[in-house]
Amino acid sequence: MGNIAACCRSFWCKPKNPDIRISLPAICFVWQIAMIILFGLFVRYDDESDAHWSEHKHKNNITSDIENDFYYRYPSFQDVHVMIFVGFGFLMTFLKRYSFGGVGFNFLIAAFGLQWALLMQGWFHSLDPNDGLIKIGIENIINADFCVAGCLIAYGALLGKVSPVQLMVLTLFGITLFAVEEYIILNVLHVRDAGGSMVIHTFGAYYGLTISWILYRPKLDHSKNLSGSVYHSDVFAMIGTLFLWMYWPSFNSAIADHGDGQHRAAINTYLALAASVLTTFAISSLSAKKGKLDMVHIQNATLAGGVAMGTAAEFMISPYGSLIVGFVCGIISTFGYLFKFSSPSLSQAILSVQLNQLVNTFDFEGNYAKRTPATQGGFQAAGLCVALAFGIVGGAIVGFILRLPCCWGDPSDENC
Amino acid sequence: MGNIAACCRSFWCKPKNPDIRISLPAICFVWQIAMIILFGLFVRYDDESDAHWSEHKHKNNITSDIENDFYYRYPSFQDVHVMIFVGFGFLMTFLKRYSFGGVGFNFLIAAFGLQWALLMQGWFHSLDPNDGLIKIGIENIINADFCVAGCLIAYGALLGKVSPVQLMVLTLFGITLFAVEEYIILNVLHVRDAGGSMVIHTFGAYYGLTISWILYRPKLDHSKNLSGSVYHSDVFAMIGTLFLWMYWPSFNSAIADHGDGQHRAAINTYLALAASVLTTFAISSLSAKKGKLDMVHIQNATLAGGVAMGTAAEFMISPYGSLIVGFVCGIISTFGYLFKFSSPSLSQAILSVQLNQLVNTFDFEGNYAKRTPATQGGFQAAGLCVALAFGIVGGAIVGFILRLPCCWGDPSDENC
Amino acid sequence: MGNIAACCRSFWCKPKNPDIRISLPAICFVWQIAMIILFGLFVRYDDESDAHWSEHKHKNNITSDIENDFYYRYPSFQDVHVMIFVGFGFLMTFLKRYSFGGVGFNFLIAAFGLQWALLMQGWFHSLDPNDGLIKIGIENIINADFCVAGCLIAYGALLGKVSPVQLMVLTLFGITLFAVEEYIILNVLHVRDAGGSMVIHTFGAYYGLTISWILYRPKLDHSKNLSGSVYHSDVFAMIGTLFLWMYWPSFNSAIADHGDGQHRAAINTYLALAASVLTTFAISSLSAKKGKLDMVHIQNATLAGGVAMGTAAEFMISPYGSLIVGFVCGIISTFGYLFKFSSPSLSQAILSVQLNQLVNTFDFEGNYAKRTPATQGGFQAAGLCVALAFGIVGGAIVGFILRLPCCWGDPSDENC
Repeated sequence: MGNIAACCRSFWCKPKNPDIRISLPAICFVWQIAMIILFGLFVRYDDESDAHWSEHKHKNNITSDIENDFYYRYPSFQDVHVMIFVGFGFLMTFLKRYSFGGVGFNFLIAAFGLQWALLMQGWFHSLDPNDGLIKIGIENIINADFCVAGCLIAYGALLGKVSPVQLMVLTLFGITLFAVEEYIILNVLHVRDAGGSMVIHTFGAYYGLTISWILYRPKLDHSKNLSGSVYHSDVFAMIGTLFLWMYWPSFNSAIADHGDGQHRAAINTYLALAASVLTTFAISSLSAKKGKLDMVHIQNATLAGGVAMGTAAEFMISPYGSLIVGFVCGIISTFGYLFKFSSPSLSQAILSVQLNQLVNTFDFEGNYAKRTPATQGGFQAAGLCVALAFGIVGGAIVGFILRLPCCWGDPSDENC
Repeated sequence: MGNIAACCRSFWCKPKNPDIRISLPAICFVWQIAMIILFGLFVRYDDESDAHWSEHKHKNNITSDIENDFYYRYPSFQDVHVMIFVGFGFLMTFLKRYSFGGVGFNFLIAAFGLQWALLMQGWFHSLDPNDGLIKIGIENIINADFCVAGCLIAYGALLGKVSPVQLMVLTLFGITLFAVEEYIILNVLHVRDAGGSMVIHTFGAYYGLTISWILYRPKLDHSKNLSGSVYHSDVFAMIGTLFLWMYWPSFNSAIADHGDGQHRAAINTYLALAASVLTTFAISSLSAKKGKLDMVHIQNATLAGGVAMGTAAEFMISPYGSLIVGFVCGIISTFGYLFKFSSPSLSQAILSVQLNQLVNTFDFEGNYAKRTPATQGGFQAAGLCVALAFGIVGGAIVGFILRLPCCWGDPSDENC
Repeated sequence: MGNIAACCRSFWCKPKNPDIRISLPAICFVWQIAMIILFGLFVRYDDESDAHWSEHKHKNNITSDIENDFYYRYPSFQDVHVMIFVGFGFLMTFLKRYSFGGVGFNFLIAAFGLQWALLMQGWFHSLDPNDGLIKIGIENIINADFCVAGCLIAYGALLGKVSPVQLMVLTLFGITLFAVEEYIILNVLHVRDAGGSMVIHTFGAYYGLTISWILYRPKLDHSKNLSGSVYHSDVFAMIGTLFLWMYWPSFNSAIADHGDGQHRAAINTYLALAASVLTTFAISSLSAKKGKLDMVHIQNATLAGGVAMGTAAEFMISPYGSLIVGFVCGIISTFGYLFKFSSPSLSQAILSVQLNQLVNTFDFEGNYAKRTPATQGGFQAAGLCVALAFGIVGGAIVGFILRLPCCWGDPSDENC
């Protein structure tokens, strides 16, 4: 009996080996080659990015090249791209020992994740029934960036606790889970979630939190000392915060409906973000001696408005409705951070999403002709449950996989 | 008599209390709630951002969603947004003690200011006569950002001298004065000012300067030591400078006329900015030992071209006309900084605006069918006077309000 | 005979004088005034940026202002502008002694270069045969930014070795050579090169390398100590890298054909860039002890995918073709850096371009109705030779000019 315990311990507690000289290159090469093969088998241009666009135009009585979806969405796409790589990347520089890791590994997993997301989302959403191929265009690459955002939110909870190899693995599983979850929420339940508050942020937050909880190693906790921010790191982190904050209207409007849909989504998000800044500054100032502002609150909570508005961005919730969403979310997420519910980059996602459901349930005005607001509210709640379930169950499974003794190259400690 | 003097002194010279733990949260909460109520009473979506867009399209024979104003202006809007939050924010990091304050308080007052600006400008410009409601769309939120720019220019003159609470107050008054001034200049005098050289920059500069002059406290002057820049702060400030410089063509073209108007405004600004860089480097190099460049000159004066071009951006002043504007403004504003006419972020605004009037007076070619160039020149000059008057008189009043002994939480000194 | 040698030596080895207090202002003023005169003589607005746009619209049956080329290309233009000033600028901050120089002189020569490029390219490409004037619009200013990119790549090889005055001279000659080279490649040989891999990157790289080789001074080599990067400098350099990486799809699609051309160029570049990140991380990790990543590899080699895709971006090479290009280029350029083929900012340009030619030769599918793929491949190869010849011969001539004893203000050393 003692033997079995010892055996188990020796299995789970093998000395950690932080060397990733073989494992990281191997995983990068093999997965990239797999991507090339899968893209070769499955992925082609869609009607609007293919050289047959001129025929497509003629056949569909499209009078001008400016009607190509590229011109509706490309400016928003570039803004979302900046949010993923500069926004999330620099948000993670505020931990002084992880400036490089924050930006660099963010770069690596996003670059891998978006390729895998194009495939996974393609199989679920963009499969051409005639030839079984995925047809990609501007909307697909925006969606791939969205998908990556979910994994980067999870990464925020794990910063400094996992090796690059583990990050690649959790990105692979994260994207896969995300694509399935998204398909169920959007296509089976027909839930409306333009900026992906529940699909992206709820899933990403709980996925990261669960993995973080399973990978918890007490000896690594002294690394909390390293979580302290330093002056210059904070200014770098503000670059991330500001680019996320400024471009959130593009995030929420990027794949909204053409015309008034995109227009309204951008305005609603702009207003919610502005309101969340004021309440965040207020709560942050209240909580500190002499009212001195804590930049970490500001860095994290000001984004609450944008996250919260995600689901409802396209709805006719009126400008004052947007302000209310931002106002309430700024308060809740700053409190969430103050009372240490969770790591900084997560609290706002979790809390504001829940609130958001309430707002949604009451506020949209007949966007779904076939469903009463109450029915739709029920489906929205069901969607939230699906996102939670995928985040927690998926995170638990991936967490255990990452604890398997293997060549993960995770940070070493004396005993586990 | 001595009693009265003593009484006055004790009134004006109460010990300063830099604690803003109550006052800042209070002002943020109360004003944000006021915004929500006012938005609830007055603000709705306009025809292009409302769900009735499809009816509007049908009624006005608009054939395509791409004709929605959103697609004409959204890319420029996001660039302007970056200028406000990253551009102005990081421009203020070059003072070593105020990196955080620069970016953070810039963020706070811009987020408040844009909401108030939507209301104030809405009442003057976008009131629907049928129902007394303000109808907002993409053009309104661009204008709100413009309006905020005026206050941020004033903030540049006050950096380190005022508390966040005072900043909120001066933003409230600044936006109010700005909206009235703008209404008089654009709608009563029918002055042309696409990039807002006089409406935004002249007003903002004199508003800030006057408040700065009234709040002047000799004991705070030792803080001039803190104005010195350090190496990394300067690199951060370059981020601000570059984003302002690069996106100025968007600033000047964002609300220009559709088609050739936006096109020409962008090209003219692009050229003026390029020319101002060369003259700024030249003067800066001339003024220093061994020709070593002073980055503060460069940070401030290179923007002169864009500011100066603001009013005239849409005019047919020819490419070489744009180069001349940039050339002259680069020289004047660098000299302005060298001879300490004013604080760095102001000199270029003030000086280049005056010059600009001259350029305008002679250069536009019949944009106003009903007015001769000379008449229009007169009106442009009148507009400038209005901007000056609002800046100076408004600044004086707000300055005195901010000197009232109250819970401003302004930086303390031994005696006043 | 000894006399002649001594005479030569005293001619070439005059003591260097690093003072640029007179020469830099002089060159800036004179050249800017020359620009104004040349613009006055030659440059006017084109049909789409001129006030006669409404007549042009009527005459050509254009139904809407949104058909103005401005709306097709302006968002991409602003992204390219950010790449030139923030991307290239901050890429050069990674050398600790040159953070300022990197950003500041990049700013100066780009601002001059784009004016000269508008003229040079205008004479070759946009001359109106009716009145002998250059008509400029949005496409011209994008091309001017492209043209400047070639000189900034050359600047990367010379960082810290040349004075600002020398930079101005090599920019003047570089733009001139570039415009001629581009005319021969695009208009005489009819080579396809949307993102300018050969026209911009091959030319720029060899131009810079050749000048660097000719200006080589052994005593300056101790400055290699100064090439080491420091922590914060590296984070700044990541800002440059990321903005270059993120906006490269705009670079390659900015002047592609309306409609599917721009759409496909953006998607192909997006995919190639993602693939190059994975292979770069892999090779970089393989080459270091314990697999620790070298940020300089990442900063330089991740861009390989975008550069390589330049020429082929618009072709129907399929999504998997783009991934293959990125995959191979990431490997080659990281190896190029490891084995010190050249300075960091150059290796990826040189190596990936050559590879690219191969890809091109086999991959495009009948874009040229009049030429067989094999013939077109031959012309593509001829284009590459022209780019190499201009880079090497032009660089040699300019290098010798810059060695002439003169008031260059170049960094001094004890003897030459």
